[in-house]
Amino acid sequence: MPIESLQDLYLEELRDIYSAEQQIIKALPQMAEGAHNPELRAAFEEHLEITCEQVRRLDSIFSELEQRPTGKKCKGMEGLIEEGSEMLKEKADPDVKDAALIAAAQRVEHYEIAAYGTVRNYARQLGLNTHVDLLQRTLDEEGETDKRLTTLAESGINEQALTGRARSRDD
Amino acid sequence: MPIESLQDLYLEELRDIYSAEQQIIKALPQMAEGAHNPELRAAFEEHLEITCEQVRRLDSIFSELEQRPTGKKCKGMEGLIEEGSEMLKEKADPDVKDAALIAAAQRVEHYEIAAYGTVRNYARQLGLNTHVDLLQRTLDEEGETDKRLTTLAESGINEQALTGRARSRDD
Repeated sequence: MPIESLQDLYLEELRDIYSAEQQIIKALPQMAEGAHNPELRAAFEEHLEITCEQVRRLDSIFSELEQRPTGKKCKGMEGLIEEGSEMLKEKADPDVKDAALIAAAQRVEHYEIAAYGTVRNYARQLGLNTHVDLLQRTLDEEGETDKRLTTLAESGINEQALTGRARSRDD
Repeated sequence: MPIESLQDLYLEELRDIYSAEQQIIKALPQMAEGAHNPELRAAFEEHLEITCEQVRRLDSIFSELEQRPTGKKCKGMEGLIEEGSEMLKEKADPDVKDAALIAAAQRVEHYEIAAYGTVRNYARQLGLNTHVDLLQRTLDEEGETDKRLTTLAESGINEQALTGRARSRDD
């Protein structure tokens, strides 16, 4: 079907994000399980809960538009998650793997920051103010998660990755 | 090969970015050609030049590390570019297509912002100060490109996408 209006594109982009979120919901438990650092594991677990709430917001937008959220597979997220999964399978020092998991997760966050920023702007242009509020809330959460991951990396995980091989695995 | 240290991970991530940049260099001329708005086309063309310079910076980093940049295909970027290519093939109103091209390009920019932010932090941790400077310069450029795309969208492309079908195609 040709995309003839910004409204059509808005719907197309919302479906892309919906598919992205579904893929993230499947991937996050594996990322949490693969995390060595307990704070990183907790961050992934909490982000799963946040993501479920974000999907509920999308559901309410689709319901208001009287449209179905399905029908599109987000290939961008597919590639990003594949990168993360490959890292989980690699033989790596646990602290280094944590650093790599953060790197993969931040790429996912940035995909979402770009994607939600786009649809928030379309919603604004289309005068859909309740959608703007919902999408802005999610956008803020994605930004906070990205910052939390940076803080985790800077506050020790990268440092441990640097020195990990010198210290005992049991402490 | 197991990833045993932050240095190994740094190299792995640099190779991922190198592959991403090569894919972007191939995709940008098609995006420029597909753009309807002359300012958007110019932005893609200029970004191609900037990207070539960014690759030269990566080359100098690899050369200093006495390593080859090749050997990894960035699957994250592959998915993002596939999304953009699909949009180029879609039947769409030209103004709406421009808006969609900006959306695709901003996902690419955000991938790079996340990826360069990661390697800049690793370089800092590893005490590779000349690398930090080079990577920071690229990171700043990616941020500027993202902002320029937002400005282009806000300054008229989304507005034209909204009203495009009502006005003449010839004006």
